[in-house]
Amino acid sequence: MKIVIIGAVAGGASAAARARRLSEDAEIVLLERGPEPSFANCGLPYYVGGKIESRDKLLVAPAQRLRERYRLDVRTLSEVTAINRSQKTVSVRDLKTGDYYEESYDKLIFATGASAFKPNIPGIDGDRIMSLRDLPDADRLHAQVTLKSGAKAAAQRVVVVGAGFIGIEVVENMVHRGVDTTLIELSDQILPPWDREMIEPLHAVLADQGVHVHLSDSAVRFEDDGTELIVHLNSGTVVRADFAVVSIGVRPENTLALDAGLACGDRGGVITNESMQTDDPDIYAVGDVAEVRCSITGDATQIPLAGPANRQGRIAADHLFGRESKYRGTQGTAIVGVFGRAAAMTGLSEKMLRRSGRSFEKVYIHPADHAGYYPGATAMSLKLLFDPEGGEILGAQAVGTNGVDKRIDVIAMAIQAGMTVYDLEEAELCYAPQFGSAKDPVNMAGFVASSVLRGDQPIVHAAEVIESVAGEPAVASDRHGFLLDVRTPSEFSAGHVEGAVNIPLEQLREHLDELPREREIVVYCKVGQRGYMATRLLAQKGFQVKNLSGGYTTYLRAETPQSVLA
Amino acid sequence: MKIVIIGAVAGGASAAARARRLSEDAEIVLLERGPEPSFANCGLPYYVGGKIESRDKLLVAPAQRLRERYRLDVRTLSEVTAINRSQKTVSVRDLKTGDYYEESYDKLIFATGASAFKPNIPGIDGDRIMSLRDLPDADRLHAQVTLKSGAKAAAQRVVVVGAGFIGIEVVENMVHRGVDTTLIELSDQILPPWDREMIEPLHAVLADQGVHVHLSDSAVRFEDDGTELIVHLNSGTVVRADFAVVSIGVRPENTLALDAGLACGDRGGVITNESMQTDDPDIYAVGDVAEVRCSITGDATQIPLAGPANRQGRIAADHLFGRESKYRGTQGTAIVGVFGRAAAMTGLSEKMLRRSGRSFEKVYIHPADHAGYYPGATAMSLKLLFDPEGGEILGAQAVGTNGVDKRIDVIAMAIQAGMTVYDLEEAELCYAPQFGSAKDPVNMAGFVASSVLRGDQPIVHAAEVIESVAGEPAVASDRHGFLLDVRTPSEFSAGHVEGAVNIPLEQLREHLDELPREREIVVYCKVGQRGYMATRLLAQKGFQVKNLSGGYTTYLRAETPQSVLA
Ligand SMILES: Cc1cc2nc3c(=O)[nH]c(=O)nc-3n(C[C@H](O)[C@H](O)[C@H](O)COP(=O)(O)OP(=O)(O)OC[C@H]3O[C@@H](n4cnc5c(N)ncnc54)[C@H](O)[C@@H]3O)c2cc1C
Ligand SMILES: Cc1cc2nc3c(=O)[nH]c(=O)nc-3n(C[C@H](O)[C@H](O)[C@H](O)COP(=O)(O)OP(=O)(O)OC[C@H]3O[C@@H](n4cnc5c(N)ncnc54)[C@H](O)[C@@H]3O)c2cc1C
Ligand SMILES: CC(C)(COP(=O)(O)OP(=O)(O)OC[C@H]1O[C@@H](n2cnc3c(N)ncnc32)[C@H](O)[C@@H]1OP(=O)(O)O)[C@@H](O)C(=O)NCCC(=O)NCCS
Ligand SMILES: CC(C)(COP(=O)(O)OP(=O)(O)OC[C@H]1O[C@@H](n2cnc3c(N)ncnc32)[C@H](O)[C@@H]1OP(=O)(O)O)[C@@H](O)C(=O)NCCC(=O)NCCS
Repeated sequence: MKIVIIGAVAGGASAAARARRLSEDAEIVLLERGPEPSFANCGLPYYVGGKIESRDKLLVAPAQRLRERYRLDVRTLSEVTAINRSQKTVSVRDLKTGDYYEESYDKLIFATGASAFKPNIPGIDGDRIMSLRDLPDADRLHAQVTLKSGAKAAAQRVVVVGAGFIGIEVVENMVHRGVDTTLIELSDQILPPWDREMIEPLHAVLADQGVHVHLSDSAVRFEDDGTELIVHLNSGTVVRADFAVVSIGVRPENTLALDAGLACGDRGGVITNESMQTDDPDIYAVGDVAEVRCSITGDATQIPLAGPANRQGRIAADHLFGRESKYRGTQGTAIVGVFGRAAAMTGLSEKMLRRSGRSFEKVYIHPADHAGYYPGATAMSLKLLFDPEGGEILGAQAVGTNGVDKRIDVIAMAIQAGMTVYDLEEAELCYAPQFGSAKDPVNMAGFVASSVLRGDQPIVHAAEVIESVAGEPAVASDRHGFLLDVRTPSEFSAGHVEGAVNIPLEQLREHLDELPREREIVVYCKVGQRGYMATRLLAQKGFQVKNLSGGYTTYLRAETPQSVLA
Repeated sequence: MKIVIIGAVAGGASAAARARRLSEDAEIVLLERGPEPSFANCGLPYYVGGKIESRDKLLVAPAQRLRERYRLDVRTLSEVTAINRSQKTVSVRDLKTGDYYEESYDKLIFATGASAFKPNIPGIDGDRIMSLRDLPDADRLHAQVTLKSGAKAAAQRVVVVGAGFIGIEVVENMVHRGVDTTLIELSDQILPPWDREMIEPLHAVLADQGVHVHLSDSAVRFEDDGTELIVHLNSGTVVRADFAVVSIGVRPENTLALDAGLACGDRGGVITNESMQTDDPDIYAVGDVAEVRCSITGDATQIPLAGPANRQGRIAADHLFGRESKYRGTQGTAIVGVFGRAAAMTGLSEKMLRRSGRSFEKVYIHPADHAGYYPGATAMSLKLLFDPEGGEILGAQAVGTNGVDKRIDVIAMAIQAGMTVYDLEEAELCYAPQFGSAKDPVNMAGFVASSVLRGDQPIVHAAEVIESVAGEPAVASDRHGFLLDVRTPSEFSAGHVEGAVNIPLEQLREHLDELPREREIVVYCKVGQRGYMATRLLAQKGFQVKNLSGGYTTYLRAETPQSVLA
């Protein structure tokens, strides 16, 4: 059996390594356009930023190791230029010599990844415009921030276009290098896959770090006047910089596949079956170049992440040797660090759910990462999305300083298992005061969501309150309007929802006669917990009451006008 | 409805709080013997050690808050001395006045917890012998290490008897206070719930911290000569100290229950049904005083942990108000910090599995907590126990510096969901280089376990190799004996299994003719990964081969004679 693999990094190298373990005798040829196989794409921003000091660290499995340990025929600087399905060969261009040759295959694995999307903006091909996908890109950026200005890179200015996770990592690392950084994002938030109110606190983090953030704006023209780069934004704003990094998403590197007539999906990904086989049974596609199914909705999608790429490579190798391995789909578990904070998610976001028209309910909590009585506890925000009937978990997002990855991983597992919010109530997780709480944030999210489903805690969401306060009740029109703040007077006076009446939870029982019986009462506190207790109390006393999920904390994040940020 | 609750901390206060939310009108009386309700038991060691500076921090929900916010009738320094089931009353002694009174109940919740076990050792009732369960205990220990010796506590010496998790936390905090610490443990390891080879690295951590550890030994007599405490050990060793802390386990505080004729189990816990109801339908038992079912085996057990106590309290309150809440059993998820390391576990240990006679397989891995190319990665050790037929996960243990809690929580969730090792292969977890790896340790454990079950990787365990090397092959008698070390020559010369032959993985293919075909080959490397590759290679070349799971790292931990430690 002769296996040819195009692309020798996450998906391709994983497929090759697994294929070797399954067959000592297979001939395995890895064709890689770049200078190195098996490098750490995900480490590139941190190498540019200097957190990873040595470039060698990025070479996860150097060519020599792949040859000696795995007996792989690795050929770098070797670009596949065509696939000839009828002859079962690929045309290869040796980039060192410029020569072409044909290589035959029994089975072919497509692992070409995805390239940085380059929109059609005037000036985008200029020397000062870069992107970050591979080692040569990283080398270029590294040189830019370490050498160019001589003694100190801090004098430099960069414009980062696109605030997806690569853009944000570039921003963090530019700031780390002392580069004056401007970030342009078309959406009204950074990290568009997350829901905006969850990401909101990170806008302030960027501002604190001195990053100039322009949301709801875009670059429309790049101009190089010989001494600097002038970036014209859609809003009319003009930003001057030494260079720009464009990171507005990636596109499956599918030209070869299209040329070879392999079926590709709407977003350009090569279509495969559950075992990563394309419509040509001798050709597999894995990683960023392949279209995947969302494991929750079953819809076709593109989710370019390293874990899925690695696992898909392994599955393709399995199938190629007759094993029944199947990919379960991608559920979109992702995390990004932002100046010591982290944003993580798994499953579907609220945006995605709205787009797909699927009904859902959501709750917000703002628990500490570990027991509050033990030093060093920090708050996180957690949003849980679930089916309003059965309680199946549809997605979760968390933002905070510590322990965010843990909670999202636990919920990711719950999603994989098809668990419900009632299962989160009963989760038995590690507890000692440095590590968690007797009721872990995951349990708390389960408690709150379950209480909503059981009808113990009718809730209302910030957007509805905001609209209602603005005079246009979105829900139950005339019933809204009585807003009850059950926090302490000092919390209240430090800021509250316009029109709210303050009766602290502790005194509520004595003031029931001041509350309306004909109208719905919306109660809130700082995070939702006292509001919940007030809700229980009032409901049992015959009031029509709803709790504002996530309390004033979530409210403020939903409300903040984006214009204040730029 | 009048609810009386005996014990106002984890289980009791949780039941009370939940009961209030379910019924605004219920009369809820909380009777607590100690000076404060709702305190952080789990924080006590850290208050003693000074990491938690203020005692107030330990008061999670002070009496005033329970009264004002939850309208609970909290009575501290109030000891229940008898339960009169026929009259449905409890006898209460007011410890402030010494007076007794009767309190009637409609429903009674037993949440008396567990007390420190005090073995019948001569001298154990002396003034210098303490234990740590409640606030008065903590106050006493706190005074001991902060005031007694005047200027500096560092002059003091303590003997800690028992190396369970409370004992270990006491040790850490005593060292933190500068107290010279000796630890006595009957078992041949600290933290007996964990398997010994997993805990082994922590023995060295204690030694590094200057703790004098005596394993396989016990205190047989305490003597107070007026100036110091003399602790006589079973081995004949004599240890002199200023005071001792005895923490050799806890016993359900069940006297009242026994006196009242409630059924108790073998280990003393009050027997309940799934809704925490005792054999008297008006009486519930929750927390450490209740017997629970192991959620994996279904066997009755006692697992004194805060999370379960809190959840059981909540379930009892639910059931009392006619809800169908059910406790799923305890799976034994636990964690303990040990001088910046952590040991965590979930499900069954190997010891428990052996005791119960249940068949199992196990694998060891030693992955990094996050991508090796990103600074700060540290190694952890992870042991996964699973069903040798279906692959259902039975238990897991992890020890390391970072990320140990996360992996055990993820696996805890998998156990709750009834997942198999094949599900761990496909787990989609957070990955960015600071937080994990594209193949997370959880995936890796799944890969390795699955490969064992699929027959891709026959394995052997350290104990078998140790016995075989010692000349008494435990398994496949004469077939053992050819030990192949596939590490580098420098790794080999720094230490290897006696009798092993060194052929580095990279050169193995050229040296096949030096390997025996008639005997079984046991191959090993540092952690098991290169050994696995060699195993695949050799198996396909027709050799009888097995990989040593966890490699030389696990081997050393299984082998270390305990005697070197004392
Ligand atoms: C800067 C950066 C940071 C990232 N951070 C994270 C992160 O934190 N977490 C995460 O999960 N994911 C992250 N990713 C995404 C992750 O790296 C990708 O999802 C993953 O590498 C995809 O694997 P792949 O094998 O499909 O493609 P790649 O790893 O991109 O490999 C494809 C290879 O194919 C080669 N190739 C393409 N065409 C040809 C051809 N015609 N002939 C020969 N070779 C060819 C390319 O040169 C390339 O080396 C990051 C990506 C980048 C760029
Ligand atoms: C030092 C220490 C550290 C710990 N660390 C951890 C940890 O890190 N993680 C973890 O999960 N668990 C830990 N635990 C265990 C955890 O605290 C217990 O499992 C949990 O508190 C049990 O809750 P409970 O309600 O059953 O009992 P408790 O919380 O002990 O409460 C029982 C209460 O009942 C009162 N009482 C008893 N008898 C009577 C009576 N007759 N009349 C009136 N009142 C009575 C007692 O005074 C006591 O306050 C720790 C325990 C200790 C002591
Ligand atoms: C490294 C690389 C070449 C793949 O090599 P690989 O051998 O499949 O992967 P790993 O080194 O992670 O090892 C995993 C294998 O070792 C086995 N293994 C790991 N630890 C083990 C242990 N202690 N004992 C036994 N086996 C072990 C696993 O079971 C798995 O084998 P399997 O797939 O046959 O089940 C490829 O993943 C790669 O190029 N990675 C870098 C690029 C990349 O991923 N970029 C994106 C992220 S930055
Ligand atoms: C604190 C204590 C009195 C119990 O009070 P409690 O109100 O049940 O518990 P918490 O304060 O954790 O709050 C949990 C409740 O608030 C709700 N809640 C939490 N955050 C919320 C939010 N943001 N929005 C809405 N509701 C929220 C939960 O749903 C839960 O209510 P439910 O049980 O009715 O579903 C009790 O747990 C205790 O005494 N703890 C200290 C002792 C102890 O546990 N010791 C051992 C560990 S150190």
